[in-house]
Amino acid sequence: METTNAQKPIGVFDSGVGGLTVLKALTDLMPGEDFLYLGDTARLPYGTKSRESVVRYALQSSRRLIDQGVKLLAVACNTASAAALPALEAAYPGVPVVGVIRPGARAACALKASGGMAVIATESTVRNGAYQRAILELCPGMRVEAQACSLFVALAEEGWTGGPLVEQIVEKSLAPLFARFAPSRPDSLVLGCTHFPVLAGAIANVAGPKVTIIDSAVTTAHEVKALLAEHGLLQSPKRAGQSRFFATDGCERFARVGGVFLGRALDPSDVTLVDL
Amino acid sequence: METTNAQKPIGVFDSGVGGLTVLKALTDLMPGEDFLYLGDTARLPYGTKSRESVVRYALQSSRRLIDQGVKLLAVACNTASAAALPALEAAYPGVPVVGVIRPGARAACALKASGGMAVIATESTVRNGAYQRAILELCPGMRVEAQACSLFVALAEEGWTGGPLVEQIVEKSLAPLFARFAPSRPDSLVLGCTHFPVLAGAIANVAGPKVTIIDSAVTTAHEVKALLAEHGLLQSPKRAGQSRFFATDGCERFARVGGVFLGRALDPSDVTLVDL
Repeated sequence: METTNAQKPIGVFDSGVGGLTVLKALTDLMPGEDFLYLGDTARLPYGTKSRESVVRYALQSSRRLIDQGVKLLAVACNTASAAALPALEAAYPGVPVVGVIRPGARAACALKASGGMAVIATESTVRNGAYQRAILELCPGMRVEAQACSLFVALAEEGWTGGPLVEQIVEKSLAPLFARFAPSRPDSLVLGCTHFPVLAGAIANVAGPKVTIIDSAVTTAHEVKALLAEHGLLQSPKRAGQSRFFATDGCERFARVGGVFLGRALDPSDVTLVDL
Repeated sequence: METTNAQKPIGVFDSGVGGLTVLKALTDLMPGEDFLYLGDTARLPYGTKSRESVVRYALQSSRRLIDQGVKLLAVACNTASAAALPALEAAYPGVPVVGVIRPGARAACALKASGGMAVIATESTVRNGAYQRAILELCPGMRVEAQACSLFVALAEEGWTGGPLVEQIVEKSLAPLFARFAPSRPDSLVLGCTHFPVLAGAIANVAGPKVTIIDSAVTTAHEVKALLAEHGLLQSPKRAGQSRFFATDGCERFARVGGVFLGRALDPSDVTLVDL
């Protein structure tokens, strides 16, 4: 029996392991789907590369997933989402492509936000301004303040995801951002880096109950589900979907560090090395 | 008047800004010398690249310094020191080349170390085992335990270099390493990453007075001075030496983050962009 389009896997592409938070959100929401995840670990970080390089890497990485017949391509990397979506859409006209930036911006803009919005991300995402632009496109005139939280990436990769010490680090890191909204707080805080969802609990504790945390991994998963439903491409949720993992370097590290983001242990033998 | 060999500058090469701790140690020890510092920021981190790529990058970066007539080349990057010293020595037979690994190992081995030695570095330096090998060459049979402290790199780049919270982070990070020596402590702790000297005070406070902290930036500076003295290439210490800075990308970030490592403010206009 030939594979129908709905039976094809979903492709997820990231520069490394952080995008596994997006894969986790996708599998939590759509347990019946199969996934192919590719982390371009040999060339990370994308954030410090030129736009042209990022577009070229994104096309190469996603080509590998497209060649395996994915029904949708999710770009779980903020830098690639900001730089390469138009190029990917042009290269694969038959495959829907979803990035992580617009879903996060859309979710933030769906909330009341008279007190303004805050975005935390890596240094390059903040400097690039993609979240700020995406929010302002949807909510012109909105107050948006963005701050780099590079330390959170290191915390997440170490598996330091909660507890009193982590909350003290989060508090000190976010203090300059919240000071810009004093004496109030922003209505929402967008987690604009794929590494940050594993720190969401600690960040929520520090931000307090009045600040809505927007997890772009979760919002992206909802956007993917809606798009698949629209195209009649959803599999039965009663099915037990499977995920396969590919990395361009360091499968051992991918498995070890990736477990934090995926929320379950990975064995190095689960990860296939690919050369792009 | 022609420039004598002693009047030539010293070249310092690193993959980024961390090597500025080595430059700081060099200028503190030899204030009369001129320095050319090149950070290959476009291609960092070297630690995740293949050995062949690191050798190629090191040759390209140092070529730029050699072409400007340096009298000595200091390789302030641990990854390049581990991978590329023989290639650099072969390429520039007339110029002494000093890396950061052997001076640190030598300083550690000069101490009594019946209780063993600890090394902290980045993940790639620990995995590569260069410090462990260099120590064991000098002190066969020595007990050496190494641990990656990737979080310290992020702390240093954020400028979080001391205080109670930083010491708590350092304590939690070093606990697994010290547990391997329990109930005692190692005799020495080698700071095997160019980022770590800015955390030396916090690390010393946590390690306690019985553990000697070996700062490889300082030990490298002493080795450079001895080598220059041996070749009759030292300038008068009464002279006011000057430093010039080159980066292959992101001069603004180089100046901003580099100030932490250099111990004095840098302006983006102090840093010249070079293409290798």
